[in-house]
Amino acid sequence: MLKLTESAMGGKQHLPNSTTFRWILPMSAFTTSFTVHTRGKGTYEITDAVARILSESRIQTGLVTVFIQHTSASLVIYENADPSARIDLNAFFDRLVPENADYFVHTDEGPDDMPSHLRMVLTRTSEAVPVAQGRLQLGSWQGIFLFEHRRAPHRRTIVVSVLG
Amino acid sequence: MLKLTESAMGGKQHLPNSTTFRWILPMSAFTTSFTVHTRGKGTYEITDAVARILSESRIQTGLVTVFIQHTSASLVIYENADPSARIDLNAFFDRLVPENADYFVHTDEGPDDMPSHLRMVLTRTSEAVPVAQGRLQLGSWQGIFLFEHRRAPHRRTIVVSVLG
Amino acid sequence: MLKLTESAMGGKQHLPNSTTFRWILPMSAFTTSFTVHTRGKGTYEITDAVARILSESRIQTGLVTVFIQHTSASLVIYENADPSARIDLNAFFDRLVPENADYFVHTDEGPDDMPSHLRMVLTRTSEAVPVAQGRLQLGSWQGIFLFEHRRAPHRRTIVVSVLG
Repeated sequence: MLKLTESAMGGKQHLPNSTTFRWILPMSAFTTSFTVHTRGKGTYEITDAVARILSESRIQTGLVTVFIQHTSASLVIYENADPSARIDLNAFFDRLVPENADYFVHTDEGPDDMPSHLRMVLTRTSEAVPVAQGRLQLGSWQGIFLFEHRRAPHRRTIVVSVLG
Repeated sequence: MLKLTESAMGGKQHLPNSTTFRWILPMSAFTTSFTVHTRGKGTYEITDAVARILSESRIQTGLVTVFIQHTSASLVIYENADPSARIDLNAFFDRLVPENADYFVHTDEGPDDMPSHLRMVLTRTSEAVPVAQGRLQLGSWQGIFLFEHRRAPHRRTIVVSVLG
Repeated sequence: MLKLTESAMGGKQHLPNSTTFRWILPMSAFTTSFTVHTRGKGTYEITDAVARILSESRIQTGLVTVFIQHTSASLVIYENADPSARIDLNAFFDRLVPENADYFVHTDEGPDDMPSHLRMVLTRTSEAVPVAQGRLQLGSWQGIFLFEHRRAPHRRTIVVSVLG
């Protein structure tokens, strides 16, 4: 790819010390997928798998979109340094969306099924991360996590799109 | 469009059985919109309308982004097989964000207005779905839904961007 | 850029009065960042900063993705006309995710730290907005806001990706 400009955008309010990357021809679109085997409720970090796909795509500037093909598991970008933050995440969602609510009518697939749909809706089915210099532009403490909401082991498919 | 590579990414951890699609020239960007007439609170499936726009764009590999131009309705990708899951979704949000909270100050537009903004913030204004082989890469049970939070009928505008 | 087609998509169900924009060569990808200095919990509108970056990119049709590189602050697209809607937003989140929950174990960084991660997970790390005719396709009452969840002043970095 051809790097056209890399210039400081100083002098604008809200844009101090910013560096801009612009790329043109050839643009490309790259779509692939991978599988995560989950072993019960909780978070599973997938940052490295996504970074490997970005590297495989050889795209330098653009956007990575991560998408989970399920309605009882979701994605979150979350604090990846201190595991205690993920313990409290699980505890919070157990309280916010309890199993066995007396008004649930969608109960055929077990007590953890309907809460899994609600926890998914409150989090995300896709996460997008900008790319510059061939790297995910995540902050220092950010990781990409699959958030599993079912108790039983599941095989989850993640689709990754890279554009740039 | 020109298909450059389609190769198994076997041999990598977390990437079993994965097929990769890469496309280059010509890339294109396609933006259009459509309208949904809602008739009160609840979910309205828009998957077919989004799929038709993708088809119209003739883009084979890339990303579809669906965006709702409103702050009292939102989008969710949700279970589309069993309607009972959508009944419980509505019941859950009626409890999580009740009308007439005694601390609300934004009340000029009726009791369902402020809850509509909060339900919107807890769900999504945009959803992104990767594209491969010209098709939305949704999972078997996933549908794209407009989530209406107002009681009165509304005309909602959805903007769709296709890149690839 | 070259405008290929601009045609009414009339005659299709759900697509009344819609105008379609398609652009091809040259596509480009543009990534930059800016900083927001926050002064405590609440919302900080960044719509103008994002619109300036879109203008700088000179991209006419495509997608803007805004990403926040932090796990104790988030992004929301929210009602930007009546400030009272933002007062109720803060009040709602203070109730939904209270400080000092007795089950929190991630408490080393103060009582507002763990709630900040949960409020971030319930809102968004990225927001995407389609672009047509060089403009963000936001609705009349939509603004893009940084949602700060910490009490102390922070320097927050926002990364913006423009594709089209």
